[in-house]
Order: sequence, then C-alpha cells, then structure tokens
Amino acid sequence: MAAVGGTPKPPKKGILERLDSGEIVIGDGGFVIALEKRGYVKAGPWTPEAAVEHPEAVRQLHREFLRAGSNVLQTFTFYASEDKLKNRGNYVSDKISGQKVNEAACDIAQEVSQEGDALVAGGVSQTPSYLSCKDKAEVKAIFQKQLEVFVKKNVDFLIAEYFEHVEEASWAVEVLKESGKPVAVSLCIGPEGDMHGIPPGECAVQLVKAGASIVGVNCHFDPETCLKTVKLMKEGLQAAKLKAHLMSQPLAFHTPDCGKQGFIDLPEFPFGLEPRVLTRWDVQKYAREAYNLGIRYIGGCCGFEPYHIRAIAEELAPERGFLPEASEKHGSWGSGLSMHTKPWVRARARKEYWENLLPASGRPYCPSVSKPDAWGVTKGAAELMQQKEATTEQQLKELFEKQKFKSSMVA
Amino acid sequence: MAAVGGTPKPPKKGILERLDSGEIVIGDGGFVIALEKRGYVKAGPWTPEAAVEHPEAVRQLHREFLRAGSNVLQTFTFYASEDKLKNRGNYVSDKISGQKVNEAACDIAQEVSQEGDALVAGGVSQTPSYLSCKDKAEVKAIFQKQLEVFVKKNVDFLIAEYFEHVEEASWAVEVLKESGKPVAVSLCIGPEGDMHGIPPGECAVQLVKAGASIVGVNCHFDPETCLKTVKLMKEGLQAAKLKAHLMSQPLAFHTPDCGKQGFIDLPEFPFGLEPRVLTRWDVQKYAREAYNLGIRYIGGCCGFEPYHIRAIAEELAPERGFLPEASEKHGSWGSGLSMHTKPWVRARARKEYWENLLPASGRPYCPSVSKPDAWGVTKGAAELMQQKEATTEQQLKELFEKQKFKSSMVA
Amino acid sequence: MAAVGGTPKPPKKGILERLDSGEIVIGDGGFVIALEKRGYVKAGPWTPEAAVEHPEAVRQLHREFLRAGSNVLQTFTFYASEDKLKNRGNYVSDKISGQKVNEAACDIAQEVSQEGDALVAGGVSQTPSYLSCKDKAEVKAIFQKQLEVFVKKNVDFLIAEYFEHVEEASWAVEVLKESGKPVAVSLCIGPEGDMHGIPPGECAVQLVKAGASIVGVNCHFDPETCLKTVKLMKEGLQAAKLKAHLMSQPLAFHTPDCGKQGFIDLPEFPFGLEPRVLTRWDVQKYAREAYNLGIRYIGGCCGFEPYHIRAIAEELAPERGFLPEASEKHGSWGSGLSMHTKPWVRARARKEYWENLLPASGRPYCPSVSKPDAWGVTKGAAELMQQKEATTEQQLKELFEKQKFKSSMVA
Amino acid sequence: MAAVGGTPKPPKKGILERLDSGEIVIGDGGFVIALEKRGYVKAGPWTPEAAVEHPEAVRQLHREFLRAGSNVLQTFTFYASEDKLKNRGNYVSDKISGQKVNEAACDIAQEVSQEGDALVAGGVSQTPSYLSCKDKAEVKAIFQKQLEVFVKKNVDFLIAEYFEHVEEASWAVEVLKESGKPVAVSLCIGPEGDMHGIPPGECAVQLVKAGASIVGVNCHFDPETCLKTVKLMKEGLQAAKLKAHLMSQPLAFHTPDCGKQGFIDLPEFPFGLEPRVLTRWDVQKYAREAYNLGIRYIGGCCGFEPYHIRAIAEELAPERGFLPEASEKHGSWGSGLSMHTKPWVRARARKEYWENLLPASGRPYCPSVSKPDAWGVTKGAAELMQQKEATTEQQLKELFEKQKFKSSMVA
Repeated sequence: MAAVGGTPKPPKKGILERLDSGEIVIGDGGFVIALEKRGYVKAGPWTPEAAVEHPEAVRQLHREFLRAGSNVLQTFTFYASEDKLKNRGNYVSDKISGQKVNEAACDIAQEVSQEGDALVAGGVSQTPSYLSCKDKAEVKAIFQKQLEVFVKKNVDFLIAEYFEHVEEASWAVEVLKESGKPVAVSLCIGPEGDMHGIPPGECAVQLVKAGASIVGVNCHFDPETCLKTVKLMKEGLQAAKLKAHLMSQPLAFHTPDCGKQGFIDLPEFPFGLEPRVLTRWDVQKYAREAYNLGIRYIGGCCGFEPYHIRAIAEELAPERGFLPEASEKHGSWGSGLSMHTKPWVRARARKEYWENLLPASGRPYCPSVSKPDAWGVTKGAAELMQQKEATTEQQLKELFEKQKFKSSMVA
Repeated sequence: MAAVGGTPKPPKKGILERLDSGEIVIGDGGFVIALEKRGYVKAGPWTPEAAVEHPEAVRQLHREFLRAGSNVLQTFTFYASEDKLKNRGNYVSDKISGQKVNEAACDIAQEVSQEGDALVAGGVSQTPSYLSCKDKAEVKAIFQKQLEVFVKKNVDFLIAEYFEHVEEASWAVEVLKESGKPVAVSLCIGPEGDMHGIPPGECAVQLVKAGASIVGVNCHFDPETCLKTVKLMKEGLQAAKLKAHLMSQPLAFHTPDCGKQGFIDLPEFPFGLEPRVLTRWDVQKYAREAYNLGIRYIGGCCGFEPYHIRAIAEELAPERGFLPEASEKHGSWGSGLSMHTKPWVRARARKEYWENLLPASGRPYCPSVSKPDAWGVTKGAAELMQQKEATTEQQLKELFEKQKFKSSMVA
Repeated sequence: MAAVGGTPKPPKKGILERLDSGEIVIGDGGFVIALEKRGYVKAGPWTPEAAVEHPEAVRQLHREFLRAGSNVLQTFTFYASEDKLKNRGNYVSDKISGQKVNEAACDIAQEVSQEGDALVAGGVSQTPSYLSCKDKAEVKAIFQKQLEVFVKKNVDFLIAEYFEHVEEASWAVEVLKESGKPVAVSLCIGPEGDMHGIPPGECAVQLVKAGASIVGVNCHFDPETCLKTVKLMKEGLQAAKLKAHLMSQPLAFHTPDCGKQGFIDLPEFPFGLEPRVLTRWDVQKYAREAYNLGIRYIGGCCGFEPYHIRAIAEELAPERGFLPEASEKHGSWGSGLSMHTKPWVRARARKEYWENLLPASGRPYCPSVSKPDAWGVTKGAAELMQQKEATTEQQLKELFEKQKFKSSMVA
Repeated sequence: MAAVGGTPKPPKKGILERLDSGEIVIGDGGFVIALEKRGYVKAGPWTPEAAVEHPEAVRQLHREFLRAGSNVLQTFTFYASEDKLKNRGNYVSDKISGQKVNEAACDIAQEVSQEGDALVAGGVSQTPSYLSCKDKAEVKAIFQKQLEVFVKKNVDFLIAEYFEHVEEASWAVEVLKESGKPVAVSLCIGPEGDMHGIPPGECAVQLVKAGASIVGVNCHFDPETCLKTVKLMKEGLQAAKLKAHLMSQPLAFHTPDCGKQGFIDLPEFPFGLEPRVLTRWDVQKYAREAYNLGIRYIGGCCGFEPYHIRAIAEELAPERGFLPEASEKHGSWGSGLSMHTKPWVRARARKEYWENLLPASGRPYCPSVSKPDAWGVTKGAAELMQQKEATTEQQLKELFEKQKFKSSMVA
C-alpha cells in the first residue's frame, strides 16, 4: 500500500501489535443511522448499497470519524451478505451485486485510511440464513464469500459483529480465521446473554476458542449495559484462564428501559430515538469506564456521530498523549465557550458544569422511559422468530394474531 | 452558469418568481451545529472558516440538503463579517481573510446547486460592531464588504438573518437591496419582539419598508414559538396593508422553556441539547402548520439535519406533487419498516403510530424542562451586554459579579 | 357563645377587625377531597351529608385545621344548596334535608371553634339552578334558604365561594349582605377570567360593588395561577379606586398544564392527582408570595391537608409572632430530623435542603404534564354545558357525539 | 369483650382461623405518616405519644381504616419500646411513660374494633438497643415489657414488624410466642435481604423456626419490590418444607430508585414524598398481584391512607363477596363520576380509563427518579451505623466527614 501522492508511508502497526503493547484503539461510529439521516441508507432494510451509489457520502463519513480519532475504519459492509441483500431485494437493485458493494466499501475505507494512521477492518454480520435454520456449511459459505473480497482487497483485520447467537458468531470467526488475519468479534447481547440464553462469560469463552483475538459487544444497548456485559465476558475468560483483548461499541442512545433484545423493541426505534442520544459528556463517562474496566478497543455503534468518537479521544487524551485532528475545532470540556459574547455562556466553559448537567428533554408531555413492545419481551419470542423467518407471510400474520398482540399495533 | 458536463441547463426560476406563483420553497438546515458535530466548526466562535479549510465537508453537507429537498443553498457565510472574524481571532488564522471565506463559500454553494434546481443565497448576519454602538455608516460598510463578494459571485438572492435588533436588520436590508437582487430577512426573535422590545408585527413592517421581499424568523426558538412570531409579523403586515412573502427557519430543538433571548440561555446550550432534537415527525407537524399559516419559504436553522429537511419535503409532497431525491431512501411515515424482520417492528410502519408516539428520553434522572440562566432572563440584560461588549474583560467581570450572578456559575 | 366548661371567653375579634388591623388570617383546607380519602364523601356528587351521617369525622378534620393554624373554620356546606342536593339525589337520602345538613355543619364548626380562636364562616357555592338559566329571583331564593340557617346559627361571617360566573357570585353576595354580616367572595377562575370571559379585574370590581368586603379566588388552579389571578383583581380594584381585602385559597395540586376551566378537565381529576400534591415547602413558597402580594386572608382549597395549612402558619410565623399548636409536632424546615439515627438524614434538617429539592415522582413511565380533555378546552364549552344541564341525557349524548369527542372516551 | 350498647357480640374468629380457612385478611395503613400530616406525630422521632396526648385523633384514624375494610387494627405502639422513647426524650415528656403509651394504644384500638369485625394486634418494632450491640437478654427484656401490656390488655394477636435484622426479629418472635398468642412478623427488607446480607428466603425460614405463624415484609419499599421479596420468602419456605401464612404491608410510595435500605435514603424522605404517593388504582394492582402470589394478609404501611385500604377491599371484593362500609362513599373504578356535570368527566367513569392512566406530576422541572444519598448506598453503612449509635455525637461527626460525605449535605 503506497501513500497517496508520493513518498511511501511506513507500514502501519497491526491491530494486535497495538493492543498487545497496551495502546488504546479507538473504533468508529455508526454508519447506517448516520447515513440514514444524511439520506443514503433506508431504515428497515438498512443495507449498504450507498458504497456503490454514493461513494462520496460514505467517504466523507469515514473521513469524519478518522479526523475524530478513529484508529479503525470498518468497511461499510453491514448486512452486505448475499442472502441479506437478496432478502431486501426491492431496495438493492439487481445490478448492485453483493460483491460489488463489498469491494466498493473496501476501496473507500482504504482510500480514506491513507489520510491518517487508521487500520481497515472488513466486517461481516449475522445472516438471515442462520435464522432460517440453514446448516453450518451453508452459513459458513456466506461468510466465505465476503471474506474472499476482504482477502483480495487485503484489509488489515476482520470483525464479525452484530450477532445475537454465539453459535453463528463462532462459525463466522472460524471462517474469518482461515485468512490468517486477526479476528475481532462482538455480539449484540446484554447481560442476560445470547438469544439462546448462553451467558456472556460462556459466549466469550466459545468465541476465543473459535479463534477470536478480540471479543466484546456492539449495538443493541447503551454504554452502561454494554460495559456490564463485557465485564461478564471478562470474568468468564478469566475463569477459563483464556486471554483476549476486550472491545465495546455500544449505542449512542440511553436505553435503561429495554429488554433482552435491545433497542429494536423500544417503541421509539428507529424514528423517535432523538431524545435518547448521548451527549459528548455521556460518551466521555463511557470512555473512562470502559478504560477502567480494562477495555482497550473502544468505539461506538448506531447513533455514534463523529463528535461522539472525538469525545472518546478527548477523554483518553491524557493516557494517549495526543488529541485527534478534529479537536482543533473543539475545546475540551466546553472551553471554546470562553470566547462567547454572553458572560453566562462563558461561565459554562468548564468541566464541572457539563459533568453535572442533567439535560432537559424540552418534552414535558413525554415520559422518561418506555416499555418495550409486548411481544418483544415475551420469553421465546426469539425462538418463534427463527421459525417464522422460514414461514409464509400469511402464517406469520396468523401467528402474530394468535399471540394476542394488541390489535392497535397491527397496521 | 453552464451545467456540469455539457448541455446548458435552462435558467432557474428566481426566488420571487417561485414564491409569487405560489410555489413552496424549501430552505436548508443548520450548518454550524451540523459541522460542529462533524468536526469542522468550533462551538463558541461558530465561524465558517471550514469553507476554506475543508471545502469537501461543506460541499457534502450542501449536497445532502439538496438531496433532501432544499430549494435554496445558503452560502456558508454565517458570522463571516470582517469584524466578527477578527473578534474571533484566535480561531481563524490571519491567513484566512473574510473575503477568502466568503468567496469560497459562494463557490461551493454554486457548484452544488448545479446538481439540482436550487438557488444560491448569499447571507449576512448580525455584527459585533452594532452591539459596540458603532454608527450606521460603519455597520453598513461591513455588510457592504460582504455584498461585494456576493455580487461578484453573482448569487441568486440575498438573506439577512439572525438579527436580534430590527434596526440593524433594516440597515442590512438597505445595503443588500442596493444590489438589485431580491432580499429576504429573518430575525432571531420570539413573540415578545426584538431586544429593544419592538413587537414582531412592527419589526416586519420596518423590514418591508426597508426593502425586503421576504420576512420571517430564524434560529433561537423551536418551530411552535417561531410560527407564533411569524403569525404576529403577518398580522402586522396586514394591518399596515403591506405585502411580503413569509419565511420561517426555526431550531430543530424543543424549547418550550426558554426566555426572550432563546436557546442560548438554556443551560443545555450548546453541548447538552441532544434530548431536545426534533424527530422527523415533529418536523412534518411544523411544515404542515407553517403551510397552513401561509408561509411558503419553509426551512430550518440550528439542529436541522438533512433528514429534517426531507421531512418538510415529504409532508408537503401532496401540495408540490413530487418527493425529494433522498426519499428514495425513506418510506413516508416509516413505511420502510414493512420490510423489517420482526412483526412488532413492521407494525410501526404507519402514520398513526409515529404521529402519536410520545418518545421517551431514556433519562429518568433528568427533568423535562429547565430554567434559563438567571442573568439571561433579567430585563435589560441585552442592553447591559451591548455596553459590555465595548468594555474591558475586567470591567465585564466586575459587572457580572455585581449582578450577584451565582458564584458557582463563574468559572 | 360561652366557652366549653365554665368561664366565658372574651368575644372574638371579627374578620374585618382582624384584616383592617393588618392581621394575617389563615383559612382552612379542602374538605371534600380530604373526607373522600377518609371515606366520608363521594367523588362525583361531592355533597356534604357527612355533617349529619358522620359528625365525628367532620369534627376531627375541623380540629386538625384549627391546630394547624386556621383562623377560620368554614362550615362544611359545600354544594349544600337544596337544588344541588336534590340533583345528587341518589346519594343523599331523602331523610337528610338540606336544612339538616346546613345546621349540622354549623353546629360542628362552632363546637370546634371553641377550642381555639377561630371564626366560623357560613358558606354558599354555585348552584345548578344558575346553569339551568333560572332567573335571578330563583337563584337568590336558594342562597336565601342557606343564609337563614347561618343567621339562625349566628355564624361569624359569610363566604360565597367556588363561582365560575361573576354574575351568580354577585347575586350571592347581594343575598348574604342582607344579613349585615361581613361577606367574603371567591371565584374559581384563572387569569383568563370567568366563564363568560369577564376578566378578573372587572370581576373584583363587580363583587365589591355588590357588597363584598373580601374578594379573591379559590379552587380550580394551583397557587401560582391563583396568585396571578388575585393580582389582576387587585389591579382592577386599584384602577377603580375601590378598597377590599384580598383572599386566596388555591388547590394543593400543581396544575401548570390546565386550561381555562381548571383541574376538572385534567385527565387525572379526581382519582389520579397524587403526583401533583404540593409539598409543605411548596406551600411555604405560596404563603410568602401571597403575603408579598398584599393578600392577608391566606388559605387553601382541594388537596390542602392540615399539614399544608400548618406550612402557611410556619412560613408567616415571623410576621405573626407565633406558631400554631400543631407545630409542637413539627420542626420548622425539617429541623425535627436532627434527631434521626442516620447522619445523612440528619443532614436534611435545614432550610436550603428542602427549599431546593426537586422531588422525583418515582414514576418514570409517566409524563410531567398532561393535556386537558379535548372538549374541555374548546371555547364555548361552558356555554354548551349550561344549555345541556337543562336537556335530557339523550340530547346530551347526541351533542357530545356531535362534537366528535373521541369515541374512546365515551364509556 | 362486650359489644357497645347491650347484646354481646359473638366472639371474633381469630387471625389463624381466618387465614387457615382461606379468608383474605386486610391489614391497616400507616399511622406515623398519616398522623404527622394531621398534626399529631413528629417526623424524625416518629414516636406514638399521641395515643396519650390526642386519643381522639388516633381513634378517628383507626375508625377510618376499619370503615375502609381493615380486618386488623394494629395498636399504635410503633417505636414505643422504653429505650426508643427514652432515646427520643426531648419529644416525649417524662410524664408519658412507655407503659402508658402502650396501654392507651391498646385501649383505643380495642374500643374501635368493637365497631366492626376487626382484630386487634399488639405490635413491637426494632430497638435502638439491638443496634447498640446490647446482648440478647437485654433486647428481649425490652420486648417482654411491651408484651406484658399486650397480655394484660388481651389483644387478639401479635405483630413484630419493621425489623432490618432477622436476628433481632427472631428474638422478638421468641418473646411474643411465650404469650401463647399467634405471632406475625415482618421485616423491612428488600430482595437483597437483611442488613447483614441474609437473603429473604433464609430470613423467612429463621422466623418460622422461631415461632412465627405469619411472615412477610412491611415498609421501606413500594409494593412491587415488597412482593418480589415476599416471593423470595415463599420460595425459601417451600424449599425448607415449612408452612406459614404470607403478609405484605408495603409503602404507598413509588420507590423504583431506592437502594438496599429503602426510602429513608431517598432525598425526598420524609418531606418531599408527595409525588410518589400511590393512586387507588396502583393499590388495586398491588392487591391483585399480592393475592395472585398467594399472600392472604394484605395491608399497607407508611403512606397508606384509608382510601388506599379501601382500594384493597374493593379489588378483592369479588373473592370476598362484600364491600367495605366506606364503599358507600365510593364507586368502584370511578363509577361515581357518572353523576358529574361535565360529559368528559363522566367519560372517566370506567375501569379502562383509570387502569391505563399515566398520571402527570405537574412538575416539569423535576426528574422522575432520584439517587439515594451517597453514604446510604455504601456497602457497610449499616454496620457503621450500628457502631455509631453507641458513640458520641462528636465521633459520629468525625466518622461522617471521614467518609467524604459531600460537605454540602452537612448542615
């Protein structure tokens, strides 16, 4: 890999080199939510065809995360497995093959990575095939197909993320591991464990045994819940005398009220989550707690915008010894306000102020928490869903009604 | 202006042609807040040097608003008057002159405008010189300097926005009017009127008499408050038998609790506003109410992201007969969710669901509204501020303490 | 009036003597709400037959208010006009005539008043006859009938309270005035004025002209709103160069969200008002503000329990020079906690603590404010209601449905 | 025991006869909080000298609970052990001995019990002596002294309640058991167990082994938390193959946010709890859930007013076949509102309305939950407190400061 425009850059330190030497590695933020707001991703299917259709938009978001301090740029290949793209057919035109999306995503991430010191990670995520009870070989073949692109494009390492079942995640790790590249894996589970009820500690053990060098959680829950889960993973690994690096990439939404299946089941998902968005100060708190817990790969998932990633980098600047590029446009703890015209706004230019602020919602008619959708919290719902995935729409509807799901919820 | 890549485009319909013929014109959203989150603008100074430093970031944001449905691209020249840039000296290097910023901002907006049917509006805003009690001639000279760039770059029309005093806004209109281009003007005031206590109706009359063809409000307040203010302007104009088009570009933050000086005085400004951000459904409600009130220039200010602008375009699609480009990636009223894996999420794919949702904040320890900072609400504070602007820091501090502003607020 | 058990007490100073000499007069609290909770009044009819059925319960409540500092014991004759009692027929047995209720209520209040220095006030309130458009003579005859009891029982003075229409209140004042006893009058209106739209200032003028020596408001709104209304009454009287004492007896519920017709229209009325109940500290704030406004007859209405009245007496103890009897069992500003076992509870034994406490609801799924029922806020609803009162149930129902009142609300 | 006024009543069925035959027994509500509001108990010491000083007030409250449906009247002897009364010396005059208080409390309860079918239960609660590490014999002697009064007055059965340590509660049970009367016992603990960390299941086992026929919890937590705890007790007893009746007497305050030591540590305790008070509908939900859990002794503690007890009786009326006397003044599920003047208030006269109401607090500036005081949640605080009880004020203060308890909290 030659640097853009002339003299070759020295080769980058690999992900394991960095983590093994005690470095903090800052991940990036959430692409599908951010690009949905920017107009390039459709909520519902959540597929990444923008890598082909609007590379400039994907490139710009990568660049913003890089400037904010990300040391890893994940290829925009979420839900880019062939079976998922087909499953979402009406949205991804036949002309855009999965391979084309995966390749374009790699190209963009690698191009931007040259603008700084970031590594590129190729990513796979859970598949509809697994939920349809297809067998191990079939599911592995799907990951294999994505991996071929990552190998061809020579990404720096691999991430299997957003898995609700440790079994499928383990299969993904096994496939990715064959490439010889380092493999990170994160489940989208909470402290109650995966959708089959396997506790986080046991999940971590299975994943490390499958070949992962880095384990953790991403998406589905807020930082507090994610850290609780990673802590359980850590304890599981310690009990099993296994070693692995820990990672966390939580939501940038407060979700103290969600059930086992995370924020998907909250009534606000996905178009009413605004009041739950973390402030930069919430993120600094998260970064500090993640660090104190021994996590060294610290990033974000859905809802994390570039300024949230910058907040991680600023919080951990004392440990790392430097600020990210985007901090040129940000005073730590609001210090930029010392230039404000009004004295009472200038008075906000200090850590204690922002640390203790309890921000109002401006929505007095709204509650502070909500109840996850009825069916979502029912035990066994996940199992039901797996079966359903394979059934016809009609059967599904009948099943749905049979569950006495309140009629008002049925469109 | 030739179209990019060959055959000349037909000349665009001007802003007044559009409004006179009854067309709805959709404005764009907030640049400084959005670019602060993306890492290109510093909160506190809020200056637009990114137009020179990072044109790709500014270009991408313009493009997103254009895709979302904006018919107007405002040049990113907020606070780009020479006196303001100088006043914020430590942040804008000497090498970046005001002229350079204004020119670059025009170039970027015009380049992107070629990608669609949008007009480019050159913008000026309130100046520190006015607050320092400089005289009319001096203040006008500052606007004159920016206008020279706009004329040279041949923007489509001009906007004077974010004025707290109708007197200064009138001066700006007078200057801009000299160019022969249509002039729009919006004050950042609420129903109580401008900082000298002049009511909205009277403000509107003064501004139309000064030469504005379009009048309204922007920034400082939420849509509900802004619409109340524009309604008062409309009534003032009717009483005076004056004609003008109406515009509104409110915050995308709920601010039922703020005082006369708007969201600046809320304790959450500017780094804890997340829980207040409007959902797209809040914006659709706003767009409908603005339309019903007779406003035809409908846009947003701070906090408005591209998807908020898209919500205006989708709400008014029946009246306009078309959807914006970005609606390819959005199902109206959440219809994209009909593809979701989980039936209870699919059940959210309908208007009634989102229209009636009362979104939770996920923050049970936080209140729903807050009190504006003590001094901010004091009558006469604005006047005090004007004097202060001219005094030394030391005097200001003394004055500040004299006001018995609670010591804990002083850094 | 001889004291219980021997030596005659000196005659009590009359209500006007007290107020004319600048004394603060503390009213009592709410009987119907308190006795409903204690099991003696039925919500809906709200009639005072308990005076006959359970005199011991009424006596005990009077006694508690007296101990708490009340200088006035109002006879428990709310809604005890013959027409109202008949209208509520299923609840008040035929054996309990209005006269019997009114007499029993006088006897109980006078018996308890002997235990302290309190005056007894006979009370009348608005009648269904007025709403049924009966004529002035008929309505006055109803008040006349109650007045006969008060005169026979020789109460100390008279109060006409809980009137939504100043016209009816004026008629009541005219009747009561004939007795030669001092007359106080309070409307249950907010700053918007009475149900015919007559503003508070004008209402006050009419009432003083009709013969009232004391005017003010009671019920329907929280202290903040009531004080705003009394302030308008005061200004009206000043403008008309009329003199009268001012009184306020607000709800002990926070109702920042209610419309013109007050808390009746809030969805929580009457069985879900708990989270809105004032703390004793809220009441102290109210008492201070009422005092500062020049109000000297300060009491409460629905929701005011004995400890709320005690809070008025404690707040104004510096001005009055003494504490009420019940303060033997209360340390001012929580000082009784200095005896607590736990140091962090002892640390709450101070004014600043309670003054600044923002008490949580313990109800994270609930909003902080609510919307008054749709029809209730419609302009003209009061007028509609007046007509309806006279019509059949069937007509009413039709009217109701015609208003497109959401079907879910109809039982 | 002869009935008031002539013919002897049949002897009442004993508490165990009732429970053994499957009857639901409804307890009474909270005396200290209710009488504090009425002006007869001082918050802080919380001692029951009102039984001697103001028997009419205590009698009236008993009567209201009886009318509301209570089958048990607990003697007002909370904190009436000699050591506690002495400890609270400044508030209970020397003339009022503990024996006098205990005797008066028995007399009042027994007098009122004649007005219905209620049993009288003599009650003891935790002692300062236990916390001062006095030995078993000394603590038992204190209970013995109260028991002598209960035996002399021949109460129907005995309750040991409000114990934070199962050890002390067991000692109390052992003493009370000597009387030959049935003994009920309830701890004021949550699911985490007693202050020495003994889990609820194990606590229940110890108490039954000590001789209790009825076990459960009271005070300190809201119904939801209390029921969780009783469920754990039930499971503990089942695992140990022990049999006992279950009882629950929770707070009438929502406390989802409190720590191990319950509502004492909440910042709102005891003078800002208003927004947390249960509605009658909350209580009906509680009664139903308690019943479904197999609890048959269902009552309340602090915050339970007569109408809350009535709500238990109304909810369980279908099972019991009758309504309490006070329901004469209450329509089930708000049906009394069908008499209301306004149609939209009449529309509230139905179960679904009240069951689904999410009542607003009317306090938009307040949060929905709060954080227990810092020290209160510290592990080991309870242990520290025990030692402290014996030390001087000065030592306590030093200890307190050593814990770095935020200085602002120290008066």
